[in-house]
Parts: sequence; C-alpha cells; structure tokens
Amino acid sequence: MPNSVEEFNTYRTKMNDKILADNNKIIKRIFNLDTNAYTDGALDLKTKELLGLVASAVLRCDDCVKYHLETSYNLGLKKEEVVEALSIATLVGGTIVIPHLRRAYEFWDALEANK
Amino acid sequence: MPNSVEEFNTYRTKMNDKILADNNKIIKRIFNLDTNAYTDGALDLKTKELLGLVASAVLRCDDCVKYHLETSYNLGLKKEEVVEALSIATLVGGTIVIPHLRRAYEFWDALEANK
Amino acid sequence: MPNSVEEFNTYRTKMNDKILADNNKIIKRIFNLDTNAYTDGALDLKTKELLGLVASAVLRCDDCVKYHLETSYNLGLKKEEVVEALSIATLVGGTIVIPHLRRAYEFWDALEANK
Amino acid sequence: MPNSVEEFNTYRTKMNDKILADNNKIIKRIFNLDTNAYTDGALDLKTKELLGLVASAVLRCDDCVKYHLETSYNLGLKKEEVVEALSIATLVGGTIVIPHLRRAYEFWDALEANK
Amino acid sequence: MPNSVEEFNTYRTKMNDKILADNNKIIKRIFNLDTNAYTDGALDLKTKELLGLVASAVLRCDDCVKYHLETSYNLGLKKEEVVEALSIATLVGGTIVIPHLRRAYEFWDALEANK
Amino acid sequence: MPNSVEEFNTYRTKMNDKILADNNKIIKRIFNLDTNAYTDGALDLKTKELLGLVASAVLRCDDCVKYHLETSYNLGLKKEEVVEALSIATLVGGTIVIPHLRRAYEFWDALEANK
Repeated sequence: MPNSVEEFNTYRTKMNDKILADNNKIIKRIFNLDTNAYTDGALDLKTKELLGLVASAVLRCDDCVKYHLETSYNLGLKKEEVVEALSIATLVGGTIVIPHLRRAYEFWDALEANK
Repeated sequence: MPNSVEEFNTYRTKMNDKILADNNKIIKRIFNLDTNAYTDGALDLKTKELLGLVASAVLRCDDCVKYHLETSYNLGLKKEEVVEALSIATLVGGTIVIPHLRRAYEFWDALEANK
Repeated sequence: MPNSVEEFNTYRTKMNDKILADNNKIIKRIFNLDTNAYTDGALDLKTKELLGLVASAVLRCDDCVKYHLETSYNLGLKKEEVVEALSIATLVGGTIVIPHLRRAYEFWDALEANK
Repeated sequence: MPNSVEEFNTYRTKMNDKILADNNKIIKRIFNLDTNAYTDGALDLKTKELLGLVASAVLRCDDCVKYHLETSYNLGLKKEEVVEALSIATLVGGTIVIPHLRRAYEFWDALEANK
Repeated sequence: MPNSVEEFNTYRTKMNDKILADNNKIIKRIFNLDTNAYTDGALDLKTKELLGLVASAVLRCDDCVKYHLETSYNLGLKKEEVVEALSIATLVGGTIVIPHLRRAYEFWDALEANK
Repeated sequence: MPNSVEEFNTYRTKMNDKILADNNKIIKRIFNLDTNAYTDGALDLKTKELLGLVASAVLRCDDCVKYHLETSYNLGLKKEEVVEALSIATLVGGTIVIPHLRRAYEFWDALEANK
C-alpha cells in the first residue's frame, strides 16, 4: 500500500535538491526565505503555519496545503484548529476551495495513520 | 476498465461525508448553500448549472467542472450548449483554460459512455 | 454630476480605439472574437451575457462586470436575473467577490438612473 | 480633508444595505455566514481575523484587506503582528502582493490617525 | 517505463482533435490564434516562448508550462535561460509557484532524457 | 494638470519607504530580491523586464504593470515590443486582461508625454 505522506515528501525533497543544485540565486533565496519565514516572532509559529495554510488553500495549491498540514501536524496543532482555519479559507475563497478541502482531509488522515 | 465518472463520485461522496461528519458549522453551511443555490428561481436550473460550470472553468477547478458537467448532463443539457458555455469561459479566461477544456471533453465522453 | 456609465463608456471607447489603431494582429483578433462570441447560438444571447458576467465576477474584473451589466441591461434582462447570476458568482468565488458585488449594484443603479 | 476610513465604511454600509434589501437568499446567507465565521472557537477571534486578512491579501482584494485591518485594529492586534501576517502573504503570494501591502500600510496609518 | 513527454503529447493531440472536430467557432479561433501568436515579430520567437512560459507558470497551469517547456527545448533555449525565466515567475507569483517549478524541472529532465 | 507617472512614483516611493522603515525581515528581503532579480544574466535585462511585465499583466496587477512599463521605457524597449509582449499576456490570460491593457496603453502614453 502506498504511503501518500512519504511519497509526497520523497518527491518534494528529490526535486527541491535538483532545483537548488542549479544555483539560480533568485530561486535559492526564495527557498531560503520560505524556510526562515516560519519561525516565532510577533506571531508564534503555530499561527504562522495556519496563515501559510490558509494562503495556500485560497490560492488552491494542493502541494502547499499538504506541506503546511504536515508542519501543523508535527507542531501539535489539533485537527479542529486546522479545520477551523480551512473553514475561513472556504468562506473567503468560495466553493472552488471544496475539492482542495477534500484532499486536505485525505492528507490529514494519512498523517494520523502514519504516526 | 476504470470508470472515471464512478470513481469521481465515489471519492467525492466519501470525502464529503468525512468533512460533514466533523460538524464545522461554517463548512456545513457552505455545503448546504451549495446544494440550495442550484434550483429554479428568476433563472431556471439549467442556466444556473451553466453559470456554475463557467465560473468553475475560468477559476480552473477541474473537480468543480466535472460536477457541473455531470449535473448538466443529467438535466438534459446538450453537448453543444455545454461546449458553447465552455467557449465563453475559454475566451474570458484565456488559453490557460484549454487544458481544463480537454479534461472537460474527456469527462463528458465518460458521462455519455456511462449511460 | 458625473455620469459613471457615460464616463466608463467614453474611456473604454477611447482606449479601445488607441489599442486597435496599433494594428497588433493578436490583440485585434481577440477583440474581434470578443464581439462575435456574444450572439445567439445553441445558447441564446441573454444566457451568454450572464455567462460572461459570472466569469467576469469570479475573476473579479470590475470593468468586465460593468460591460456585461450594461449589455444585460440593454438586452432587457431583469435585475433579479442579474442578481441571481451574481449570487452564483459569490457562492463559487467566495466572499472576496462581495466588494465587486457592491460596485456591480452601484453600476446597475447608474444604468437605471440613466435611462 | 477626506477620511479614508470613514469613506470606506460609509460606502460599504450603504451598498451592503442595498444588496441585503434585495432579499436574494444565497447572498443574504453568505453575508450572514461572513458575520458568524469570525468568532472565538477552536481558534480565537484574533487569529481568525489574521487568517481572513492573509486570505484577502493573497487574493489581492483591497476592500477585504481594509475590512480585516479595521477589525484587527479594533481587536487590539498590534501593527507588528499584522505586518508579520502580511509578510507571510507577500511571501506566499509573490511580489504582486506588494501594491496591496502599500495600500494596507496607508489604511493602517489612517486607522491610527483616526482614533 | 512510461515516457511522460510522449504521454503528454499523445493525450494533448487526441483531445485537441476531439475539441476541434466539434466545430465551435470561438474555440477553433482561439486555438488558431494560439498557434499564430508564437512567431517572430517585433520580439523573436524564443522571447515569446519564454513570455508564454512565465505567463503559464504564474497562472500555475502545469500543462501550459509543459507545452512551453517542450517548445523552448525544441527551439534550442538553454536550461539556464528557462530557469532564469522561471525564477522571475517564482518571484512575481510567490512560493505557490514552487510546486509547479518542481514539475517543470521534472518535465525538462524528461525532455533531455528523451532526445 | 496631474502627471500620472510622477504621481505613481511619488506614492510608490513614499509607501515603500514606510514599509522598509518597519524592518520586517521577510518583507525587506523580498523587496531586495525584487531589485536584484532584474539584472543581466543568462537572459538580458530587457527580456527579464518583459517577463515581469507579462507576469504582472496576466496576474492583473496594474501597479506592477506600470512599474515594468516605466522600466521597459527607460531601457529603450520600443512600444511595439511592449505591445507584442502584452498581446501574449492577453491571449494566455483572456479577455479579462483587456481592461489592464487599456490602462497600460494610457500609462505608456503618459511615459511618452513625460519625456
């Protein structure tokens, strides 16, 4: 049985490595910024992860949603907190967010099954 | 041979059930609104389905397009009516709509093969 | 007192003339397509105007919404039909459509005040 | 001297009243949902406002950003918290978010000048 | 071993043929325009392909990206030129472009492996 | 008589200064990246400006379009080159790009009138 979490992470890491090996300065710095943005500051890390999740959901980027779901999960955010964030995304972004909500639920289940 | 219509509907129903079982009020009410919006009113149901289809196509949501294609098909809308609606979507939304047009055609064929 | 309908149309015509005078073939043909797409076919013209309106609303293009509102108004579509189309747009596109809904209402009022 | 906060609120209220007076059920229920979504729940209200702000910013809806800025301001969120949320929006949504960031700063200044 | 380039092209051609066989005038003319736009003019063809690539990337249309990658590859554009174009897309469009960057790299590798 | 180019630049500079004075690291680094990305590399600067212009146009960011128009103008790009780039944007992004095309033409005229 395939493990969707592991498959997602393996592909992500493999391709990120290829991209970063190319030494395009702009891309490398954007990747670097992405890593540094999600840290405690005026807002705590958990809140920032939820902000990243909602931004990803309304822009309908499944891979970005998965990434923030996994990080949220690992930070100990509860499902109901994540779902409440996704409910704001669905309200603001409309019913076109719903298919992404279905895939977000599926991935969260995979994260829980994976522990 | 896999049946893309059945597969789509099975996944959709399974995940919708999971989402609704969670009892997030905002999400439940959006799902409920989505069901109630597509009924005869000042505009008839067929017109509203086409409006939902075009909105989904320009926003490039394949699952939403499939859903409205299936409902349109079941309401007896003809292929040339649906295609004409999709031609407006392609004009307004640009050539980036074309890949979604390809998948819409494929799904319509599956709907016809399925009857 | 400024007339928002006239102001909109005057600017639109002036700039369209400048653009078309430039003889860029691709742009001229897109403008030409845009004119030809909204005609009776498998779907009638009124339905197509509503499809153009909803596509414009979910893509949040105020000028496109105004254009389709004016054409819908001139075709004799009733306010409640137009509003019902916009309600589908708001449902599919989410609460970010609401500011465009406000401006659509304002422009419809201007169209009615203008007759 | 015009007051941009007051002007924004006056227009918003006037047009919302017109829209709601029309009694379109779908639109009324979406407005109603919008009011009810931003309350304490699994996440507190301040976090939800920031989620609404970031969703609005990446979808580049200036009026939605202004609305959430005002509510955030009234809830006592600090400028550095709001800016940190907007920094996530700019990272996720790209440099096209920057013009909206400029207008967000201008509106926040107007909120502070207004107190 | 499946060949992702061939698979992509076969599906694309098959569905385009079905769409064009339907004789919807608007769609046919958009397809025709799409073919004619990418030719030498005030800008050379290579530059236009990169413009099409960047437009596709920021609008996050994987199939459009693949199409322009293949055409760019066949025109002799170097990987570092293509990557530099994609870096502009990632900067302007934000981190949500990154998953599309991963798939673009994968497809470029397939193009190179395919020669 | 107001000068739209000067007005645009004055507002842009004033607000950028306010934003940068705030010392949010993520935002400062994105601004910095934005400055550094548009330099000669594997692609020359003129090509990159056109890529930034097209990305801005399909994402329908008027201020970003204006910025790249001004930079393109200052680099000596000819109107027909810029228009050809914008024609690709209109084709890929659809008729919703047209209102932005009108404003782009108006701003280009202001740039020429301004010299």
